[in-house]
Amino acid sequence: MTETRPQLRVYDDTRALFHLPEGVIYLDGNSLGALPLGAAERVARTITAEWGEDLIRAWNTAGWYVQPRRVGDRIARLIGAEPGSVMMGDTLSLKVYQALAAALDMVPERRVILSDTGNFPTDLYMAEGLITTLGRGHALRLVAPEAIEDALTEEVAVLYITEVDYRTGRKHDMAGLTAKAHALGIVTVWDLAHSAGALPVDLAGAGADFAAGCTYKYLNGGPGAPAFLYVAPRHAERARAALSGWMGHAKPFAFDLGYRPAGGVERMRVGTPPVLALAALEASLDIWDRVDIAEVRARSIALCDLFIAEVERRCPSLRLVTPRDPASRGSQVSFAFEGGYAAMQALIAQGVIGDFRAPDIMRFGFTPLYIGEVEVVRAAEILEAIIRDEVWRRPEFAVVNAVT
Amino acid sequence: MTETRPQLRVYDDTRALFHLPEGVIYLDGNSLGALPLGAAERVARTITAEWGEDLIRAWNTAGWYVQPRRVGDRIARLIGAEPGSVMMGDTLSLKVYQALAAALDMVPERRVILSDTGNFPTDLYMAEGLITTLGRGHALRLVAPEAIEDALTEEVAVLYITEVDYRTGRKHDMAGLTAKAHALGIVTVWDLAHSAGALPVDLAGAGADFAAGCTYKYLNGGPGAPAFLYVAPRHAERARAALSGWMGHAKPFAFDLGYRPAGGVERMRVGTPPVLALAALEASLDIWDRVDIAEVRARSIALCDLFIAEVERRCPSLRLVTPRDPASRGSQVSFAFEGGYAAMQALIAQGVIGDFRAPDIMRFGFTPLYIGEVEVVRAAEILEAIIRDEVWRRPEFAVVNAVT
Repeated sequence: MTETRPQLRVYDDTRALFHLPEGVIYLDGNSLGALPLGAAERVARTITAEWGEDLIRAWNTAGWYVQPRRVGDRIARLIGAEPGSVMMGDTLSLKVYQALAAALDMVPERRVILSDTGNFPTDLYMAEGLITTLGRGHALRLVAPEAIEDALTEEVAVLYITEVDYRTGRKHDMAGLTAKAHALGIVTVWDLAHSAGALPVDLAGAGADFAAGCTYKYLNGGPGAPAFLYVAPRHAERARAALSGWMGHAKPFAFDLGYRPAGGVERMRVGTPPVLALAALEASLDIWDRVDIAEVRARSIALCDLFIAEVERRCPSLRLVTPRDPASRGSQVSFAFEGGYAAMQALIAQGVIGDFRAPDIMRFGFTPLYIGEVEVVRAAEILEAIIRDEVWRRPEFAVVNAVT
Repeated sequence: MTETRPQLRVYDDTRALFHLPEGVIYLDGNSLGALPLGAAERVARTITAEWGEDLIRAWNTAGWYVQPRRVGDRIARLIGAEPGSVMMGDTLSLKVYQALAAALDMVPERRVILSDTGNFPTDLYMAEGLITTLGRGHALRLVAPEAIEDALTEEVAVLYITEVDYRTGRKHDMAGLTAKAHALGIVTVWDLAHSAGALPVDLAGAGADFAAGCTYKYLNGGPGAPAFLYVAPRHAERARAALSGWMGHAKPFAFDLGYRPAGGVERMRVGTPPVLALAALEASLDIWDRVDIAEVRARSIALCDLFIAEVERRCPSLRLVTPRDPASRGSQVSFAFEGGYAAMQALIAQGVIGDFRAPDIMRFGFTPLYIGEVEVVRAAEILEAIIRDEVWRRPEFAVVNAVT
């Protein structure tokens, strides 16, 4: 922890703490965050000094064993979670699975999982798999995002949604939906993939039951960085750990033949923690510990507003699909455009990196720790030229070969 | 791949490719393998050049997306698996869970999972969790390791065991048990945690159905290195992916709302792969690619035989619990001793690192890539003095504070 170190001003102090390649305007930090300069050294230390010198002893001497919880507490501060309520590990797909399984277990008499068509597909796929494994006739009910509030009924067991839509950036009202859900006896599972590090989240204040998120987007933890899982303290001692691995056992090193869950969120650990990945993430959290998320949010809103204004003025053929009201969106701006895939390839070829989501969405993420107004205006200028001059119609941008 | 590079002689050529701390004799590579010298540089390159410079583009440019399968093929060679049959990711707990779920699905009319009391506890815990989620009255039947063959009956759905016992080093007959299981309509799931990199495994030859293992032990992939999952090609197109994440979808980047499994073992991917951890593992595989596993096994047998002979001669109060017959054991030697915990602490204090498993097992792993005869004899000498002089009775070695 670095609580005694002075707070960092967003962008003015933080920009210099990230590596960004020459000639690149990076508007895809909502997919993979940029590299914190401290990450390479931090991971090298873990490899050389901890693994190399301490070997197996490093589970104690370097604190590897307690790292998933210690890092969880650093994430907790950014998402309004109580200390000791967040556990790191695995991937977001697995963490939403654990959360959904525990949530369904709390409402055994109901059979409907309510989600929306703006949820990220892996959440839906994992739910499908769980429903099949459970074999008890659960149904995954999908409605349009704007219909989710009205779809909350006493038939619903679990509300299972992503706060910020990965495609449009539309943001759900977590506090309002959670309150309505609870009034109807519904348990909530929130996916914070596009929320954590993008905007203030107040899990405790909203009374959320379960939440999960990844750390490689706005939190800049690196490719394949571990996920986090939040269990409200009021549920943690009862929540069933469906993926009941030894690290979540009450006494992992007793090597008992029978499973007994550890207390609290510790039971949501599964196997051996990803030590190297957690080390990279800690380098990023050294920055996050010293940043005010409210300041990040204010900057993010200003950047998104500026980009919307610049693009709408310069490129009338692009249609904004992100809510114009800052309170209803996350930290990304998406435009629909028929030549969206090709236009994004043309942008990338000119150093402006956003991404594309089928069928026609050009997606731009705004990460105020390392993106400022100058880059936003310049990106809009380059986009304008690509649309105006029909650069995107060139054959080299038409080939679909991307994994992004 | 490095197939054109000359083969390495075990120990004579490979010892210099690992870092081992001054004054340490490391006999715990069966828990966490030693650091390959190339790992730090390899991970630094992934962080600085791939993540830092290529950012999101590195999923294509650096091959991150195909890495889990490419690395799986490098592991396949070491475990006698067909190319394209091994997938990397997650942890061993999760991979045995996926394997068990798929195996049970193939035998829907039976309800018994057969395992033994020498299986690693997390395998048993994950099975308990799966049984509860399934809710269809499955039972986990545990027998003593030596009783496993007789316990194979037509009631059994899945034989679910670890080939080499983590405590005693006793090795099951994979080919024999698999053949008998198949004759009775039983599907097999093999945990190779203490096999991969320790001895030749022949999954294809044995006709194994599913197998999983970790890569941080004999394979030297580093703390929290990813696990692997093997699915026999004859099952791969039908096997149900219970943890049905988007990376195992037939078209992950179509972002369909409904799940459709990818072909083959690709469906056993779950979420975003652990890129940094896979990079560290690849540095270790650069060595493994050039080593003959039969030569490793011959060296391992010689080292274990030597250690047994030295310790039995010097320390008559220790009782060998590992099979004396090399064909019946892995690459570790365990002794039971009433003061085992304290004696291991005393050994570690003198630089001989093994580990302890309750209730009274002193465990020593032999990893021929970086351990030779000199270290084995010296370790036995130090152990002799600790037992003879009753060093282990000193109060400083009595405190139980270990996470090992």
